[in-house]
Amino acid sequence: MNNIDLKKLNHDIERFVEDRDWDQFHSLKNLTMALSVECSELVEIFQWLSEKQSNEVKNNPELLSKVQDEVADIFLYLMRIVSKTNIDIETVVRSKMLKNAEKYPIERSRGIAKKYNEL
Amino acid sequence: MNNIDLKKLNHDIERFVEDRDWDQFHSLKNLTMALSVECSELVEIFQWLSEKQSNEVKNNPELLSKVQDEVADIFLYLMRIVSKTNIDIETVVRSKMLKNAEKYPIERSRGIAKKYNEL
Amino acid sequence: MNNIDLKKLNHDIERFVEDRDWDQFHSLKNLTMALSVECSELVEIFQWLSEKQSNEVKNNPELLSKVQDEVADIFLYLMRIVSKTNIDIETVVRSKMLKNAEKYPIERSRGIAKKYNEL
Amino acid sequence: MNNIDLKKLNHDIERFVEDRDWDQFHSLKNLTMALSVECSELVEIFQWLSEKQSNEVKNNPELLSKVQDEVADIFLYLMRIVSKTNIDIETVVRSKMLKNAEKYPIERSRGIAKKYNEL
Repeated sequence: MNNIDLKKLNHDIERFVEDRDWDQFHSLKNLTMALSVECSELVEIFQWLSEKQSNEVKNNPELLSKVQDEVADIFLYLMRIVSKTNIDIETVVRSKMLKNAEKYPIERSRGIAKKYNEL
Repeated sequence: MNNIDLKKLNHDIERFVEDRDWDQFHSLKNLTMALSVECSELVEIFQWLSEKQSNEVKNNPELLSKVQDEVADIFLYLMRIVSKTNIDIETVVRSKMLKNAEKYPIERSRGIAKKYNEL
Repeated sequence: MNNIDLKKLNHDIERFVEDRDWDQFHSLKNLTMALSVECSELVEIFQWLSEKQSNEVKNNPELLSKVQDEVADIFLYLMRIVSKTNIDIETVVRSKMLKNAEKYPIERSRGIAKKYNEL
Repeated sequence: MNNIDLKKLNHDIERFVEDRDWDQFHSLKNLTMALSVECSELVEIFQWLSEKQSNEVKNNPELLSKVQDEVADIFLYLMRIVSKTNIDIETVVRSKMLKNAEKYPIERSRGIAKKYNEL
């Protein structure tokens, strides 16, 4: 996993939006809808594939390229939401990981894919 | 927008998954489903709010905290997908921004929220 | 709202699937993914529209036609899921309406769009 | 597959909404968001299950009951959208089936889960 210069990236995204005067459409409600639509475009790639086939996507240049495009779209809208809410992404992710570690203690969740309230 | 140490974060996420032996559930197909479910939990927060109300979420600590949790969950699953596909996130996002700039030339898309093939 | 002959419709859908030997792809997991993808195609139509504009879709033949197509796709996949699980749709919908009436008593939920556990 | 009295059901749904004065929240934009959220709650049930396990849900009363509840919620919001757009559901579904039959001719799509434009 390579690092990413979020500060510079976000600056360029905001420039892109400003150039097109699109901020008027970017309410949090709308951005969230757009984010969920992009996620579904990723789901569409995998919907008829077996789990095994889905894992082999990285050996299929054509499919991988589609996955990359959708992942990029998801990332772009997510950054818009992060920027609009002034969220510090590292802080909230670290905080959520701590919550998850508490909800899913190793000894009780090991090898089990159940929701914490069903463990 | 603050930067984030993706390399270290990803290392810790992988450790979390390994500790729980959850990698067996993390096919790309399943991760994509989980990602879309987390997105919808973000959508749920905004579904009955007006666009204006959605933008005021950052002044409502209780709602903002929910948004932060969902954004974190989305980010976490997205990082899993990025890691599993060996995607270089900065490269694919930059590449998608170039495609978007071509699909949505400033002069034709300014102030218009239409899909590129309807412009 | 006109009635619909679900029995006959389902018979014809099953014939369509059988003719194409597609039942092998129609696990409940996959059908659910496909259903969520079709829902998002409906969301995509409305994502940049205001609420007011969304309500005027029925006066826009081109957009209405898209909405009709997506609603049909959603209905088709939903019928597949209903058929695969032997759900009696009227029974489960009636039963859910009773639960909703309990969760959202008129006096406490009137004019309020909050989740029952926040009322 | 049993039939369903849509006309009467829709009448009762509209009464439920009217009693709670909820029509003010039911723009097509919002209803579509709510529909997609309910779909994701169905997806959540299946996200970590194998395809085979997903098909066995009908033998698991607890999971089946959850599936029934989510299917009912999806149906309810879909009926709201159908009602708001004055769609004749049988007509649009039949029309979409004809389009699908053209897009996916038996001889070219038999046993193949590819999108029509990739066949």
